[in-house]
Amino acid sequence: MANVLITGGAGFIGTNLALHLQAAGHTVSILDCLITGRAEKVHGFPLIRQDVRQPITGTYDWIFHLACPASPPHYQADPLFTLTTAFEGTRQVLQCAHTCGARVILASTSEVYGDPQVHPQPEYYWGHVNPIGMRSCYDEGKRAAETLAFIYRTQYQVDVRVARIFNTYGPYMEPDDGRVISNFILQALHHKPITLYGDGAQTRSCQYIKDLLEAFELYIQLDPILLESFFSIRNMALPVLNLGNPQEYTIKMLAEIVLNAIPESNSSLCFRPLPQDDPKRRRPDISLAHACLGWTPKVLLTEGIARTVDYFRSVS
Amino acid sequence: MANVLITGGAGFIGTNLALHLQAAGHTVSILDCLITGRAEKVHGFPLIRQDVRQPITGTYDWIFHLACPASPPHYQADPLFTLTTAFEGTRQVLQCAHTCGARVILASTSEVYGDPQVHPQPEYYWGHVNPIGMRSCYDEGKRAAETLAFIYRTQYQVDVRVARIFNTYGPYMEPDDGRVISNFILQALHHKPITLYGDGAQTRSCQYIKDLLEAFELYIQLDPILLESFFSIRNMALPVLNLGNPQEYTIKMLAEIVLNAIPESNSSLCFRPLPQDDPKRRRPDISLAHACLGWTPKVLLTEGIARTVDYFRSVS
Repeated sequence: MANVLITGGAGFIGTNLALHLQAAGHTVSILDCLITGRAEKVHGFPLIRQDVRQPITGTYDWIFHLACPASPPHYQADPLFTLTTAFEGTRQVLQCAHTCGARVILASTSEVYGDPQVHPQPEYYWGHVNPIGMRSCYDEGKRAAETLAFIYRTQYQVDVRVARIFNTYGPYMEPDDGRVISNFILQALHHKPITLYGDGAQTRSCQYIKDLLEAFELYIQLDPILLESFFSIRNMALPVLNLGNPQEYTIKMLAEIVLNAIPESNSSLCFRPLPQDDPKRRRPDISLAHACLGWTPKVLLTEGIARTVDYFRSVS
Repeated sequence: MANVLITGGAGFIGTNLALHLQAAGHTVSILDCLITGRAEKVHGFPLIRQDVRQPITGTYDWIFHLACPASPPHYQADPLFTLTTAFEGTRQVLQCAHTCGARVILASTSEVYGDPQVHPQPEYYWGHVNPIGMRSCYDEGKRAAETLAFIYRTQYQVDVRVARIFNTYGPYMEPDDGRVISNFILQALHHKPITLYGDGAQTRSCQYIKDLLEAFELYIQLDPILLESFFSIRNMALPVLNLGNPQEYTIKMLAEIVLNAIPESNSSLCFRPLPQDDPKRRRPDISLAHACLGWTPKVLLTEGIARTVDYFRSVS
């Protein structure tokens, strides 16, 4: 059983991961400054309340580094905080791992692919990212965080593994995240119009949190020598895996599935003009994760949405 | 006359800039940790010997932020130093400018375009960069530095202007930089074979230092309101200009021009296999710099090489 630190453990993915690893018998501590993380998501785990950009002490077997504002309304609220958290936070985590010998999963993001010109995106795709725009604080911050991971692995032999996480949903999402599934569920539960931008024909891929947690567990436990050989025969000096659900749905289908899951709702669909910064279409190529971990997402969208609805019912 | 700080003032571009601005009547101080910069290039200017990643004090009218290892052998020697210098050094410079009200030129690089898929490269091109390779410490570091500049200008009203500098040569280049022109000149002066990789047909664009200094002087002096309106009508929230010479030469032509400039040399051309990480072809689109500053490079390659040869003769 492992002694685990989860940075950003009071956020959406972090809190789910903490509960999941505890149930599997591991010892979990949380590091969170509770700026976008929430105290009620700490769930009684030991909390190191600090800024991840400050030096991290302690000895761990595994560190899951999730700390960083991740939704556009959060990460654009204070771009300098976002960018320095992505960069300096990752450096502190890797420095801690270098000192204590921990294995690290760095939570990266599909945003490193930017506005991709290749569909679906494989890990070797370099991306298409604007370095000087509204989203750059997050996109470039996470790219530079991956560069740090590359350096710490190749120069300092830190066993860091990168997960490029695609759009994920489930219990403990923040209501103000501005994500499409949580927005739709909250609108339907409150009998408000379900707002679709444009004609609703744009697509999203959506991964249920439980599938991501299973990938995390397989990824962190993979034997270092097997991992190294898997990636080195592919000419990758740093392990990087896309973790997401490649199944695409139109926004309109998502709205209809949500409405079906909440039969008492009086909400109807309401179409609005497409905003300028509408999130771009991204779809993961997960063949590498499948080959490496034997993993594929299993939870059907209808089932994942039903469980997410249950969660939002329970807290509203 | 301005009170000027040049970070990296003991490097190739910095030392030329310091002498140039002093000759124009400005007061110049240098900040350099003298790791890749050289004490003999300080030329008696007041030296703040510190790591640019540490807080910078003082009050300046202009800051030219040049501090960062910039040639592949230097920047790959310690990738973590390079990446953190590019990022944290820029943050400290921008923080100092925010405090003292200085205007800043951030020295960025053609490397932000990576291995470009568009020729020549205009400023609005987002680039094609590998986030997790040998060059990423420099390329991604400079991209994240530009993101910092974007944030400090848009959120904190710091008057920062980005210069994407293309391949530049001239007096005070480091002999061990591994740049093609200095390599050829040193080989010819020492009567050693002039090594060309591949068939020598690959091209380079080469800017003589004096042209760059003139662009710097025009760029830093441009009225902030004119600058703002020039870029805002082009939908650019951050001023960014390519500074380079778009004229391309084959490596073989460069070697021949160098040999012509050193008639006493016994060197002959020697062809070797192309290494895997041969620098990519890049050519600046400088129409924006021309429109903004009325600037174009003027120094002919033969003249620039002759002056560079004079310099290397004087120090060897």
